[in-house]
Amino acid sequence: MLVVLKPGTPESAAAGVLTRLRMAGLAVHRTEHDGRVRIAAVGEPGAMDWDDVAKWPAVESVSKLARPFKLASRAFHPHDTVISVGRVAIGGVQLAIMAGPCSVEGEEQVFTIARAVAEAGATVLRGGAYKPRTSPYAFQGLGEEGLKLLRRAADANALAVVSEVMEPQLVGLLARYSDILQVGARNMQNYALLREVGHSDKPVLLKRGLSNTIEEWLLSAEHVMAHGNRQVILCERGIRTFETYTRNTLDLNAVPVVKELSHLPVIVDPSHGTGIRDKVAPMARAAVAAGADGLIIEVHHDPDRALSDGAQSLRPEQFVELVRQIRTIAEVLGRTV
Amino acid sequence: MLVVLKPGTPESAAAGVLTRLRMAGLAVHRTEHDGRVRIAAVGEPGAMDWDDVAKWPAVESVSKLARPFKLASRAFHPHDTVISVGRVAIGGVQLAIMAGPCSVEGEEQVFTIARAVAEAGATVLRGGAYKPRTSPYAFQGLGEEGLKLLRRAADANALAVVSEVMEPQLVGLLARYSDILQVGARNMQNYALLREVGHSDKPVLLKRGLSNTIEEWLLSAEHVMAHGNRQVILCERGIRTFETYTRNTLDLNAVPVVKELSHLPVIVDPSHGTGIRDKVAPMARAAVAAGADGLIIEVHHDPDRALSDGAQSLRPEQFVELVRQIRTIAEVLGRTV
Amino acid sequence: MLVVLKPGTPESAAAGVLTRLRMAGLAVHRTEHDGRVRIAAVGEPGAMDWDDVAKWPAVESVSKLARPFKLASRAFHPHDTVISVGRVAIGGVQLAIMAGPCSVEGEEQVFTIARAVAEAGATVLRGGAYKPRTSPYAFQGLGEEGLKLLRRAADANALAVVSEVMEPQLVGLLARYSDILQVGARNMQNYALLREVGHSDKPVLLKRGLSNTIEEWLLSAEHVMAHGNRQVILCERGIRTFETYTRNTLDLNAVPVVKELSHLPVIVDPSHGTGIRDKVAPMARAAVAAGADGLIIEVHHDPDRALSDGAQSLRPEQFVELVRQIRTIAEVLGRTV
Amino acid sequence: MLVVLKPGTPESAAAGVLTRLRMAGLAVHRTEHDGRVRIAAVGEPGAMDWDDVAKWPAVESVSKLARPFKLASRAFHPHDTVISVGRVAIGGVQLAIMAGPCSVEGEEQVFTIARAVAEAGATVLRGGAYKPRTSPYAFQGLGEEGLKLLRRAADANALAVVSEVMEPQLVGLLARYSDILQVGARNMQNYALLREVGHSDKPVLLKRGLSNTIEEWLLSAEHVMAHGNRQVILCERGIRTFETYTRNTLDLNAVPVVKELSHLPVIVDPSHGTGIRDKVAPMARAAVAAGADGLIIEVHHDPDRALSDGAQSLRPEQFVELVRQIRTIAEVLGRTV
Repeated sequence: MLVVLKPGTPESAAAGVLTRLRMAGLAVHRTEHDGRVRIAAVGEPGAMDWDDVAKWPAVESVSKLARPFKLASRAFHPHDTVISVGRVAIGGVQLAIMAGPCSVEGEEQVFTIARAVAEAGATVLRGGAYKPRTSPYAFQGLGEEGLKLLRRAADANALAVVSEVMEPQLVGLLARYSDILQVGARNMQNYALLREVGHSDKPVLLKRGLSNTIEEWLLSAEHVMAHGNRQVILCERGIRTFETYTRNTLDLNAVPVVKELSHLPVIVDPSHGTGIRDKVAPMARAAVAAGADGLIIEVHHDPDRALSDGAQSLRPEQFVELVRQIRTIAEVLGRTV
Repeated sequence: MLVVLKPGTPESAAAGVLTRLRMAGLAVHRTEHDGRVRIAAVGEPGAMDWDDVAKWPAVESVSKLARPFKLASRAFHPHDTVISVGRVAIGGVQLAIMAGPCSVEGEEQVFTIARAVAEAGATVLRGGAYKPRTSPYAFQGLGEEGLKLLRRAADANALAVVSEVMEPQLVGLLARYSDILQVGARNMQNYALLREVGHSDKPVLLKRGLSNTIEEWLLSAEHVMAHGNRQVILCERGIRTFETYTRNTLDLNAVPVVKELSHLPVIVDPSHGTGIRDKVAPMARAAVAAGADGLIIEVHHDPDRALSDGAQSLRPEQFVELVRQIRTIAEVLGRTV
Repeated sequence: MLVVLKPGTPESAAAGVLTRLRMAGLAVHRTEHDGRVRIAAVGEPGAMDWDDVAKWPAVESVSKLARPFKLASRAFHPHDTVISVGRVAIGGVQLAIMAGPCSVEGEEQVFTIARAVAEAGATVLRGGAYKPRTSPYAFQGLGEEGLKLLRRAADANALAVVSEVMEPQLVGLLARYSDILQVGARNMQNYALLREVGHSDKPVLLKRGLSNTIEEWLLSAEHVMAHGNRQVILCERGIRTFETYTRNTLDLNAVPVVKELSHLPVIVDPSHGTGIRDKVAPMARAAVAAGADGLIIEVHHDPDRALSDGAQSLRPEQFVELVRQIRTIAEVLGRTV
Repeated sequence: MLVVLKPGTPESAAAGVLTRLRMAGLAVHRTEHDGRVRIAAVGEPGAMDWDDVAKWPAVESVSKLARPFKLASRAFHPHDTVISVGRVAIGGVQLAIMAGPCSVEGEEQVFTIARAVAEAGATVLRGGAYKPRTSPYAFQGLGEEGLKLLRRAADANALAVVSEVMEPQLVGLLARYSDILQVGARNMQNYALLREVGHSDKPVLLKRGLSNTIEEWLLSAEHVMAHGNRQVILCERGIRTFETYTRNTLDLNAVPVVKELSHLPVIVDPSHGTGIRDKVAPMARAAVAAGADGLIIEVHHDPDRALSDGAQSLRPEQFVELVRQIRTIAEVLGRTV
């Protein structure tokens, strides 16, 4: 249920409402909008007599949160969530441009790419140190050594870091080196992992699963938020369809749909979404035109020798040109790069 | 096979090559590029000794057309096909903006909408007179009466007309009133219909089937072209996936993929592609940013009372605003509206 | 609306009800069940005062046909429809086994195969004379010549014939040679074709489209039935999914679902459904175990030289063994072969 | 690479080959077939001079394991893997019938159901103690308390236990109570979890992900096997398609495809595969007819009050009838129940 308090309710009265709801066994979550405290109370709907709650002095209105996701919904939190990381406020006016190699491969590689993407206008450095690989025999990443390189390369270029965490026990380790914890598409419904990143104080970049509906994706965000971490960035990265020419089908419809249903920022990954280098720029432009809050793009200075995903990585000069094009499209929507 | 003649080959020599290939039982199709005649010869590959053909005096090169579509491929026809209809050259620098009601419902409706979309910048009026309906009990369209209204409303506003033809026997009738013959998604592999529009001299707007791959779509264009009509406009309108929030999943990846594989113009239908009014503008912008050659959009002055598809039709003022936004995005790609 | 008359209503009274409904502009369709005349009245729901109709002397009850398909629904026609063709009653206790080559290729081929499948237990000979081909350059079938061969080979072996009709104008020709008119998957929503076979007195075998829901499939059956032809046999032949190992994903769930929603017989095509010869027998057995009313299977005596679909055709001896296995499984469900 | 040793190679010579391959940095896996030791050597293909290996005295042949999965492939292990659990040998002649409630809800519930399914012929008791739930607010299972109940109910009825493990850290706990460790569909590519169950000595039941190809599924089995645990049971449970009438589309094609590609047993879950009670029996029969090695079915004595998935649970008497039907179908394929 959504309980909205009257404007100007003193803090002590608000705290009283929260306590009474909690004592009924409900989990309560609080936000503010238009000068009003808004409380999402989640649990057994029969735990309270809601007609009675509506008559409490501090309460302005009580209504049902109709969607299965509560904290992630616009009904609970009407204005856009903005998540500050390093120099960028994700979900704000400025688009978040995240770029970097698929995998961290070595010092020279990551420093070269970090410098290139920073100069082009990126504010976040991406790079995998732990790689989810379909085959057990493929390169699995450099592990902590890779994280250290990523951190140093980012710091040297005033970039924030986003990197993937694949298992609950590694959340603490990742959080030491990375500013944003990425949950990959294969792990979108790995609830133990969602619980652990939900306990972290680092923002979470949650990729959409290849066969997951938008509602399921928002419910996975809800898992993270229900554990206390409200800094969730959604990332569309392509769904699985019958089409085989592209690696996946980037579902840009998801961008305006998420913006309607949720207050969380949504970015787009055109590199995995298409899997083809020369399709990345058109789809990146399209994502911005559709209203995305940012992009995450694979860039490699020597893609033919990349240890993973070289075929979909942009060369630095292609990335520069792409950022230039995006700048103008962003203006049409009142955004900046 | 693709036979390229030497630059400056006299017409008589070119005609001789064509005749010899034809006499071997091959279907031959001719185009020109960079001052060279290019010939696609289709049929039994063993009909000729191709090593021998390569030595004919007029012949510069002989190569295989590797893709299953031949006439639709860039290998046969390297430069973009531009199709002139009324005031617009589809596939040229100017984007083709087609707009109008889902169904023609009556004189006042179609004239009101035609004027509105023309003023906003559309150059082609869309409108269904024969409607493919999943249910046999739904409104099936006004038929020829609807076509007459559509033609008059278009002429009064200097617009061209695009309207759907659903069966082979009606191609002649449609061609009397409509400048472009639309083949709907459900008929993408209706080969009898493709044959008949292939015999017409009117351009064909070929929608992608809901579950068809890009290769199958281009093969359907090939059916039309093999029957003689090379004026095919491709139209992406959403594919079927597991996602149910949107009516279909508009596959914008298809835009850059088609532009790579084929010389034919490709436009996008965000109205059917999303099925939701307030998602039409974001996806229309995205389509242009992805490189589409145009848009086809449902507009209705009174969508709540539309006989079909009201929920996805833009109001005229929304369409005006959309065209304004698209103008700026088009400039980023060196296009105009 | 569904109007059920009282048991024992005299024919004149029943006719009176039908007339009054017709005069209100409704299309009326009649069937009988449990000694009661049942009338589906389709059209503008406001055409009648239904509370008033419920009080007419002959009327037992009036209710809504909730599903979008009416004539195809169990609500209108509660008992199974049985369609007699040659020696087999499709939808009855005996399973309908249809078998034969993908395409009719010549006299020897079709006679050899017809004899083999008849001896193995088939009652219907399948074979394509007009072939829908994705590529305009592939073998398109022998046309009427093929139909003649098919008819003669069937007659010589006491088999009925099923063959595909691809365009409205050819329905009459097909009906001269074939006992069952097949509408292929690509034409499931070709409404002009559905209308023409709806006007025929030959049973129609309606294949499910590759991306069509079960509801849309039944609505296409409704198109045929609304035009007067109630002899529709549904055929599941695989849908399109992300899986690429098999040509299609045979959706056997559709069998029990259709049996619940509709009274029409449903058969299964494991040849197109899998596209792989050694997967045909397992899926044919599974189809019968799931409750299918029959099978349609490609058989070729020399599959490596077949002009189409050789890779999925059974050899005659494999077909014999398959029918033997099916016989026992059918018994579990109280069916015979 | 696959290295096959000559028949009669003494153990010391075989050990020598294994050592030499290991010393080259390759992971080696050994099996036997037809009296020959077969060694899969996985790692950098350039680690050895394979022409040289082919000349080693004990070596009969060296060939490439073409598929991306090695240990899971029939090429490495040509005969069927049979996994013994309690009274049943999964993958052997007798079908494995696993049945029980979706979730363990309490003592009376699990004992009632365990007795019912044991009497009907099941050999394995299923039941969830840790439940993966799309919503964070849904019932998450009884945890260890549920496992204890499950174990006691199974022991009282001479059943083995299968239960789902959702996170790496709980593998040890699950292995104390459950004979088979289930990895759910959402976790099919949770590599940390696959690693942990790969280190366990309990058989693993690996469900196919909703959008995963058969090849990816076998690669997930390969992850488990590469960590040392070769007892993997595959379980098809429905994939995600556009069809919405059934909860998922049970892909029975996967059964014969897996049996061709792999030696691992494959069972089918028609409860999740359809999501509809009265569709479970038809699809269970179909699964057996398609060649499945067993079934896993939800049974509940009071499904309307089940805490999860009641709508797809069979009542005990329906389960009894189903097992009776399956018995006869199994005989057609030379199997028993």
